[in-house]
Amino acid sequence: MNKQWILAERPVGTPDASTWRLETNPIPEIKEGEFLIKQHYISLDPAMRGWMNDMKSYIPPVQIGEVMRAGTVGEVIATKHDGYAVGDHVTGWGGVQQYTATDGARYHKVDPNIAPLPMYIGTLGMPGMTAYFGIIQEGKIKEGDVVLVSGGAGAVGSIVGQIAKIKGCKVVGIAGGEKKCKYMTEELGFDGAIDYKNENVYKGIKRECPDGIDVYFDNVGGDILDYALANLRFRARVVICGAISQYNNRENVVGPKNYLSLLVNRASMQGMVVLDYAKDYQKAAMEMGMWIAQGKMKSREDIYEGIENFPETFHRLFNGKKMGKLVLKVKED
Amino acid sequence: MNKQWILAERPVGTPDASTWRLETNPIPEIKEGEFLIKQHYISLDPAMRGWMNDMKSYIPPVQIGEVMRAGTVGEVIATKHDGYAVGDHVTGWGGVQQYTATDGARYHKVDPNIAPLPMYIGTLGMPGMTAYFGIIQEGKIKEGDVVLVSGGAGAVGSIVGQIAKIKGCKVVGIAGGEKKCKYMTEELGFDGAIDYKNENVYKGIKRECPDGIDVYFDNVGGDILDYALANLRFRARVVICGAISQYNNRENVVGPKNYLSLLVNRASMQGMVVLDYAKDYQKAAMEMGMWIAQGKMKSREDIYEGIENFPETFHRLFNGKKMGKLVLKVKED
Repeated sequence: MNKQWILAERPVGTPDASTWRLETNPIPEIKEGEFLIKQHYISLDPAMRGWMNDMKSYIPPVQIGEVMRAGTVGEVIATKHDGYAVGDHVTGWGGVQQYTATDGARYHKVDPNIAPLPMYIGTLGMPGMTAYFGIIQEGKIKEGDVVLVSGGAGAVGSIVGQIAKIKGCKVVGIAGGEKKCKYMTEELGFDGAIDYKNENVYKGIKRECPDGIDVYFDNVGGDILDYALANLRFRARVVICGAISQYNNRENVVGPKNYLSLLVNRASMQGMVVLDYAKDYQKAAMEMGMWIAQGKMKSREDIYEGIENFPETFHRLFNGKKMGKLVLKVKED
Repeated sequence: MNKQWILAERPVGTPDASTWRLETNPIPEIKEGEFLIKQHYISLDPAMRGWMNDMKSYIPPVQIGEVMRAGTVGEVIATKHDGYAVGDHVTGWGGVQQYTATDGARYHKVDPNIAPLPMYIGTLGMPGMTAYFGIIQEGKIKEGDVVLVSGGAGAVGSIVGQIAKIKGCKVVGIAGGEKKCKYMTEELGFDGAIDYKNENVYKGIKRECPDGIDVYFDNVGGDILDYALANLRFRARVVICGAISQYNNRENVVGPKNYLSLLVNRASMQGMVVLDYAKDYQKAAMEMGMWIAQGKMKSREDIYEGIENFPETFHRLFNGKKMGKLVLKVKED
């Protein structure tokens, strides 16, 4: 049987017990040209909250009654597809369920001997690609730039900061709590950390970036975006990757009241969605893989077990109780 | 004697009777390397409101006790400068006063036989340059783009829209009142108009730009910016030129709550200040002059007389009671 988490109703604000329901359905039968995946790991990402809202966005919303959309990595256990053999490991949009039948569209193979499977939905998957293209192509970093990144200990932010370090920037991360701040400076090599739970972020930016910011990579929105805007340098770039502080709002999103800093500093604010860079994923994955192999980049997955625990684990995205990339382990050992 | 408007105190919100004081002082004596200008016209621009605030911006604030900063055009009436003869007409930052002594830094000569003097502080001056570089370099317009411009009947917006028309775009202007809307569509050739005083601007954008906006040129901020953000197309560009709705706020600036549309649509918001393009002003002025001569571009100045009337005239920038470029005529005939 196939345990599946189904979107039962659209949440207003924070998802709760009635948002999803757990169903147990037969394992799907595969048709000619399809293969069946037993999922090992499910990727939990802040963007999933946005996909639950019934509004125009960069991809259609998950419909009520559908399996909750999620990235996955797993193993092919049956196949009627020439390109995929039993035993192949594949990553794609498998959803929050144990088994997925697919024709392979937007799936690709991965090798568990090269990197552990969870990394393929983390640093070598969407979060890593988001970081890579966001900071390089949209942030347009160059040596000597001062880079500030919110969610700096998270799946995207931790990679953003490490790439910026590799490219010769000064990097300051914002995260919640001493443990995450130490992780950024002591393990990831960031030049500075700002603890939004225990200090005033505006003052923290003044302390860590006294001459202002060249690139701000924003995962959070809200006040922190405003504080960053207030400290931009001439021709600064603000990359809008996400706004986790706003995703569970019951009211309107709070807009950045300091946006006229863009005018004063001739700065730009650029939105990005990782899907646009698909044609270059492979090149980026190779470069990131080399950095990891060379010890220049660290990747950390925070793995919780049991598909039954999906809702509770999902909340860790928003309550800060996770470290690095949040992953749900499906496979029973 | 030289009548001068002096900044007496920093306004909170809308400037009032105590903001400036009129002084009558001796006409300045010129030193070696200087010349004396009798000003004919003073440029009144929304940006002047920003220069009165004591905060870091793209130029230093006007200091208390200083002559109010303003663009001017006038005639040289005395000279100890080799490059300027009596009878030359010059434009520059003369301030709100009748006479200005200068060494010529950031002044340049203009010819009243080629264009009427007020046009040199309007379409051929800062507002025109702002429009030109803003819509071409920052808006990156290309044929077929849908361009929305707020303040569409104003000094900058009217030129933005006309340049976009010349470049083959569809142009929709936002302005207040039937007269300004007719001016945009019937005289300036815009494809559509939205009357923010008499209709819902969000619905107006839906009607005039049913497929969305490629470029939004923003002079106003506030709700109108949010409505535009809600209607962006993929890879749209928002040019932040000004925020006239916010300049007299006593409270915080209102931020654009729809800024995440930048993410969804991979759009950008870019601030601009015209001073950055100084090295290309001449080329732009030539092109604009040709468009005017060919009848492709119309320029309209709204001229009020008497330096004594500066404060009342200044208010027309914010209460909408002017049409096109606002100019104060100084010279007594």
